[in-house]
Amino acid sequence: MQADKKACLVIGAGDDTGAAIGRAFAREHMVSCLVRRPRHAGALEALAKSIRDEGYQAVALPADAREENDMTALVEKIETEIAPIEVAVFNIGANVRFPITQTTSRVYRKVWEMGCFAGFLMGREVAKVMLKRGHGTIIFTGATASVRGRESSAAFAGAKHSLRALAQSMARELGPKNIHVAHTIIDGAIDSNFIRENVPNVEAFREDDAILNPDHIAQNYVMLHKQPRTAWTHELDLRPWKETW
Amino acid sequence: MQADKKACLVIGAGDDTGAAIGRAFAREHMVSCLVRRPRHAGALEALAKSIRDEGYQAVALPADAREENDMTALVEKIETEIAPIEVAVFNIGANVRFPITQTTSRVYRKVWEMGCFAGFLMGREVAKVMLKRGHGTIIFTGATASVRGRESSAAFAGAKHSLRALAQSMARELGPKNIHVAHTIIDGAIDSNFIRENVPNVEAFREDDAILNPDHIAQNYVMLHKQPRTAWTHELDLRPWKETW
Amino acid sequence: MQADKKACLVIGAGDDTGAAIGRAFAREHMVSCLVRRPRHAGALEALAKSIRDEGYQAVALPADAREENDMTALVEKIETEIAPIEVAVFNIGANVRFPITQTTSRVYRKVWEMGCFAGFLMGREVAKVMLKRGHGTIIFTGATASVRGRESSAAFAGAKHSLRALAQSMARELGPKNIHVAHTIIDGAIDSNFIRENVPNVEAFREDDAILNPDHIAQNYVMLHKQPRTAWTHELDLRPWKETW
Amino acid sequence: MQADKKACLVIGAGDDTGAAIGRAFAREHMVSCLVRRPRHAGALEALAKSIRDEGYQAVALPADAREENDMTALVEKIETEIAPIEVAVFNIGANVRFPITQTTSRVYRKVWEMGCFAGFLMGREVAKVMLKRGHGTIIFTGATASVRGRESSAAFAGAKHSLRALAQSMARELGPKNIHVAHTIIDGAIDSNFIRENVPNVEAFREDDAILNPDHIAQNYVMLHKQPRTAWTHELDLRPWKETW
Repeated sequence: MQADKKACLVIGAGDDTGAAIGRAFAREHMVSCLVRRPRHAGALEALAKSIRDEGYQAVALPADAREENDMTALVEKIETEIAPIEVAVFNIGANVRFPITQTTSRVYRKVWEMGCFAGFLMGREVAKVMLKRGHGTIIFTGATASVRGRESSAAFAGAKHSLRALAQSMARELGPKNIHVAHTIIDGAIDSNFIRENVPNVEAFREDDAILNPDHIAQNYVMLHKQPRTAWTHELDLRPWKETW
Repeated sequence: MQADKKACLVIGAGDDTGAAIGRAFAREHMVSCLVRRPRHAGALEALAKSIRDEGYQAVALPADAREENDMTALVEKIETEIAPIEVAVFNIGANVRFPITQTTSRVYRKVWEMGCFAGFLMGREVAKVMLKRGHGTIIFTGATASVRGRESSAAFAGAKHSLRALAQSMARELGPKNIHVAHTIIDGAIDSNFIRENVPNVEAFREDDAILNPDHIAQNYVMLHKQPRTAWTHELDLRPWKETW
Repeated sequence: MQADKKACLVIGAGDDTGAAIGRAFAREHMVSCLVRRPRHAGALEALAKSIRDEGYQAVALPADAREENDMTALVEKIETEIAPIEVAVFNIGANVRFPITQTTSRVYRKVWEMGCFAGFLMGREVAKVMLKRGHGTIIFTGATASVRGRESSAAFAGAKHSLRALAQSMARELGPKNIHVAHTIIDGAIDSNFIRENVPNVEAFREDDAILNPDHIAQNYVMLHKQPRTAWTHELDLRPWKETW
Repeated sequence: MQADKKACLVIGAGDDTGAAIGRAFAREHMVSCLVRRPRHAGALEALAKSIRDEGYQAVALPADAREENDMTALVEKIETEIAPIEVAVFNIGANVRFPITQTTSRVYRKVWEMGCFAGFLMGREVAKVMLKRGHGTIIFTGATASVRGRESSAAFAGAKHSLRALAQSMARELGPKNIHVAHTIIDGAIDSNFIRENVPNVEAFREDDAILNPDHIAQNYVMLHKQPRTAWTHELDLRPWKETW
């Protein structure tokens, strides 16, 4: 592989925020390594292709981020066949809402596995290779639920709180080893497929800049990666100007 | 069963804090329903007996709190055979420390299952019966790691943050339904078997009131249960006077 | 003075919460030293008398808590003429709401002087005498605005945040010197003159336990004072069961 | 004045962070309006000249930021004679440490006046002109003491907590009016005159990137100002990679 090539791993490269993050780091001349569940392999490859069509580098790597073997193999593959991982972004959401008495143990566990355990696997595996090289950036995507539990959010807030604890623990442990670990708090609706399909008048919100633009979120992730190490940010909140909080 | 009998369920009725909590609610004339893993059944029965020897009521109910079927059966058994659960305390710790790269997925998952998932199962099951009656108290035991992740604490802080999210979500959801959900932050060493075996000079600390006395913790749990509902506390920190924080 | 007599100083002994706190500590057999601005001297004396009529001890000590000389003289007077101050409670509110552009510097400063500077004066003066004796309890009354700034609350939230910083700094400094410093977060409407005059249907709220009962708040202050020092609480939130938060 | 000229007001344009911020916004083609106490007028003019010597625009405007009349006049002067204020940065520190019993009321009040009241005056005055135009950015510089009180920091943490409440209140009120209000948490030693004079081996720290570089702090302030309004940050922490926190 090319001597100075660097990879950016994006776990949860869905259609919106994850896609924008993958694209943004590709534009920074990294090889965007895009990961999403195998059943979305088609959409994932289409995303990678659209980035390559822009003249940048991107690879679709379908995998189940909750599977330890898959994640170890994934990091190994990128490191040996593609490029050293310089940036890793964990971007899997798992936003469900159920009253506590209607939250099944299956849902509760699955939300934690997707929203937190998968983040642990990614974080640990990339930490191993970054520690050997002595540098790297790891970013975890959080939400308001990362800092606040509310009615019907035991599962989602649980996973997000736990992911935040992971980010904070890793930042305190790995910062002094020159690995920048950051956590974002995305507070507000994102201009995403989900919102476009479920919220009426999204056009009006978009015109008004009242929902988060995925590209703008992505710019902030690139910014975090580029911060000189005399002044690193650990936690970054992002919300639309009109958002009530 | 006796008409006005009430049960206090204590999950994690170990030798120290859990035992003290079970004893304290028994002294309030509840039937203390003490739960601990089956391999500690002997110690659990000894605890129950020591409470009964004082003239109060206590039952040893060995069970694995991470097993959904066990927990549903447990709540069912107490409700039908012993007394309505008026108070439920989740008191399982899971304090381990490993650098992130040495944290196995088995440890990470197990700490979450013990420290959080089991709490979810207890919380959900007792919420169901308390909601039907329209009253009850649920207390989750937290730690400094509930609000702060630090080096080598990704697993423990993850479970504790997640448990806190559960407590906060349940409090916001169930408070207006007359169920008092509280979360404690125990900040400091407890005068426990573990500490007595691992820390030199525990006697000196105890003489100096410099470690948490389990009975004093337990008094605060009883106090939380007794708060009139015009003034409920959701989060209570407890630390020895000399503790640095 | 009587050898074992102890004083409880209450700054901000208004008609509701402050009055209830003063009464509650008097019932604990302390001499309640009630302080309020001189223009309320009549109401203050009536409060003291009503406590004495119950058979307990109380003294009305009108003073401007923002005046350093008044506060030094007050503490001196109590210590030499009445009893050693064992408990001190700072309970002055200053809840005003103005949009930022309509907040005059006079209001901004006055709210800080009442809600924070006066607390500093009390805290410092009682700390001096308590440090000499090696024990004591100091409690500062906070509010939701202590931890959250919102629109139109720059002045009030500013004073309350600052008071919380005082409480936390003092707790970390004086805890290891055996002085228990606590901060409460009163979250919700209190059953007070102000609310009774400004909110319709207060009766219905009261019947429903949906507003904070001053006596219940006061019980918690007494509880904080009585906590054994192996398990001290620094921050205690109190809200009605139905409160949205 | 030039039609599209914009001013950046920096209150607390000392030799280090404030200077770097003033310089950074000048390089963004704003007129840097630098404010510091009159007794530092010489240093202030030297700073302004050094920015002009680089080919950018800067004006030294000595003033006492705690004086309401001075601040109103200052904003008026900039708005009428220089350029509309597009960005305002409050950067006055007031870091003193005294045990609570040795904190004079003069110090306690002065630290609040410098570290908070002056920020209120600036915030309110620039909010007025920004609201008329419907846009602008206001940034307040915080510290670890903004979120944590510790021994000997009642005065400093008090002012900083209060400033944070101001920032948060203003953000919630003015965000939906298109004014971006942000608060930074600078956590660690800054490569400043003070540190250079008081800490041995600053060279070694600097070589190691272990102290905050004022230019790097300033870059983050410019970044905050440039964030698209679909994704605004309210609170930004900045610390050196090696910092323990």
